[in-house]
Amino acid sequence: MSFEDLWRQLAPIGRHSDTGGYRRYAYSPAELECRAWFQETAAARDLPVETDRNGNLWAWWGAPGPGAVVTGSHLDSVPDGGAFDGPLGVISGFAAIDLLRERGFQPTRPIAVVAFAEEEGGRFGIACLGSRLLTGAIAPERARELADQNGITLAAAMSAAGLDPDEIGRDDTALARIGAYVELHIEQGRAQADLDAPVAVGTGIWPHGRWRLEFTGFADHAGTTRLVDRRDPMLTYANTVLAARKKARLAGALATVGRVLCEPNGTNAVPSRVRAWLDARAADEHILTGVITEIERASRERAGRDRTGFTMTRESYTGPVVFNPELAERIAGLLGPVPRLATGAGHDAGVLAAHVPTGMLFVRNPTGVSHSPAEHAELADCLAGVRALATVIEDLAA
Amino acid sequence: MSFEDLWRQLAPIGRHSDTGGYRRYAYSPAELECRAWFQETAAARDLPVETDRNGNLWAWWGAPGPGAVVTGSHLDSVPDGGAFDGPLGVISGFAAIDLLRERGFQPTRPIAVVAFAEEEGGRFGIACLGSRLLTGAIAPERARELADQNGITLAAAMSAAGLDPDEIGRDDTALARIGAYVELHIEQGRAQADLDAPVAVGTGIWPHGRWRLEFTGFADHAGTTRLVDRRDPMLTYANTVLAARKKARLAGALATVGRVLCEPNGTNAVPSRVRAWLDARAADEHILTGVITEIERASRERAGRDRTGFTMTRESYTGPVVFNPELAERIAGLLGPVPRLATGAGHDAGVLAAHVPTGMLFVRNPTGVSHSPAEHAELADCLAGVRALATVIEDLAA
Repeated sequence: MSFEDLWRQLAPIGRHSDTGGYRRYAYSPAELECRAWFQETAAARDLPVETDRNGNLWAWWGAPGPGAVVTGSHLDSVPDGGAFDGPLGVISGFAAIDLLRERGFQPTRPIAVVAFAEEEGGRFGIACLGSRLLTGAIAPERARELADQNGITLAAAMSAAGLDPDEIGRDDTALARIGAYVELHIEQGRAQADLDAPVAVGTGIWPHGRWRLEFTGFADHAGTTRLVDRRDPMLTYANTVLAARKKARLAGALATVGRVLCEPNGTNAVPSRVRAWLDARAADEHILTGVITEIERASRERAGRDRTGFTMTRESYTGPVVFNPELAERIAGLLGPVPRLATGAGHDAGVLAAHVPTGMLFVRNPTGVSHSPAEHAELADCLAGVRALATVIEDLAA
Repeated sequence: MSFEDLWRQLAPIGRHSDTGGYRRYAYSPAELECRAWFQETAAARDLPVETDRNGNLWAWWGAPGPGAVVTGSHLDSVPDGGAFDGPLGVISGFAAIDLLRERGFQPTRPIAVVAFAEEEGGRFGIACLGSRLLTGAIAPERARELADQNGITLAAAMSAAGLDPDEIGRDDTALARIGAYVELHIEQGRAQADLDAPVAVGTGIWPHGRWRLEFTGFADHAGTTRLVDRRDPMLTYANTVLAARKKARLAGALATVGRVLCEPNGTNAVPSRVRAWLDARAADEHILTGVITEIERASRERAGRDRTGFTMTRESYTGPVVFNPELAERIAGLLGPVPRLATGAGHDAGVLAAHVPTGMLFVRNPTGVSHSPAEHAELADCLAGVRALATVIEDLAA
């Protein structure tokens, strides 16, 4: 079965008919269908599948054990995300194994394709949740209580999916088996497009984090409450959105407010509460800390004038990641003259990098668009990615 | 049965246990329970109930016919609204009839208690929908297609509630029966509290309207898309929120953005679309038009800089309302020295005023808080309102 066949199988799952975007939220019906696809795809290749304690899926070529060469990515999506972000790495893992078997390759180390759970944080708000749990980067008691927009906790969602939430947490056994992790991913900017390179080698990830912003005021009638009597948190929120953009622009960083929830959200009611999430990233931690401090200061000052409450809570943070330089060197040596790139996007590879030798391969994104239904990569570039991944696995597992 | 008993019966319906606020959206289970309460309350008083073609409920004392003295209000709520806004007028109508019967009053004109449908626009976005349909102020074909946040149309919601949406529209028969309409309502500001008056007579309603704001951009990855490459509609939205406040403040008007919906609403995605609703009111139409024009100009200018799309659509508008001066005079004469007030809040009385002699009674709101779980009126003031309403009905129906 070809790359194209795998792609066609996965393509309709969780695709929203109106937007054309994907809504594959962790442990939702659509994501469970993706998991079933993973199981069937592995079974068709005689690759036994293991679901680890943290809900990550592993398909094994060879007996699971130390020194394993692991590839993969994730199957979940952001709301109305594209088809490539995540699934391309999983499909390419299986396709690379197909290619290696066609070539008659006999690995001397175990090989695994992994699909990490809730990489996007699209349901429970913490990115890379599966790999964070695996590596102990988040406490299991905190993770269990993370809740989605309907108040369903991770614990409840995992139980409903047949998993035991009491078992989540750092998994030294699973971690110790990984000899190297190489994640293939669509590029999420335009760097490769500008360099005319179908495949690139990742060098690292910018420090980045998510902050929860909470603005509290007092619900009141929009038609009768004098402006001076109001405590309207929407004003403080709006000021923060503009401040975040300005501070990031001045510092050469990135800051985005892409998610907002207003209560009671009635046209003729002054809001009682506005919650929002800030995503911020920069080339180094010094710049990032400076931007966050500036945004917080501007928001607090405005909250004072609006007589609203303001809190800013760091929900997740990943320091700068430098992928294993020897591994990057080795990969680049195998692939010939390919660009080396750092990225502003977080990945499970970034979480694993602190524990095991980790690298990344990027596949060209001609428009740079990602986290959008318009995300796209050319088939020829995807196939170049599969060949590159097969070459890397062959070398590492020989 | 006393006012307090009626109050206690209605109080638990549609009350949210977390917020203590009411969520009685038109034709929702909670609001249908309120309608059942209306039916039972009328039946217990031998007042036959009629549901008109537009979903408004009428309980009749005497045969429905011309010259009827009509009182009432509405049973639906804004999201997490208070207990008084609407229900106080309906309960007081029934309680006033109880009082008149105790006094042995024999009306020579028919009397009705009415509960208008979807006064708040909390589900379908158009305030005073039941009275607007009744008076022909909104076209039935437009109303049928109004949809709630889940895409359920008014037509579908009415059908599910056993009503025929093909029958909605101007109802000259129902309108021709109304000799006078007097709506009792909790005050939604602090004017009476400052004047130490439990009851006041309404003189009119400020012109007010709702505008739907739509900001469109392009969904993209928050971690990799350069700021200069973005078309982020959240920025344009935030600027509009602040502009609306500023323009209203400078003009002595009211402007509120209390409802916002973001798509895809993901923490690490630049939004593709932000929709919001602007509520604006002013003492006269000239001021209101000026404020709206200024907000639109500021938003359009910012949208140009953000390379986003911006549209502003008037969803509803009510010009200035002056309640029938003779009726107001007559009511004030009956009640002795009471304040006369204009209000910024819309009411079904404002819609009916263009067609039939209409007046309002306001009951004191000690904090001025409304559209909030904290909305409150003292029992003694509510009972004073019932007595005042009974006096007015007695006079008009004698």
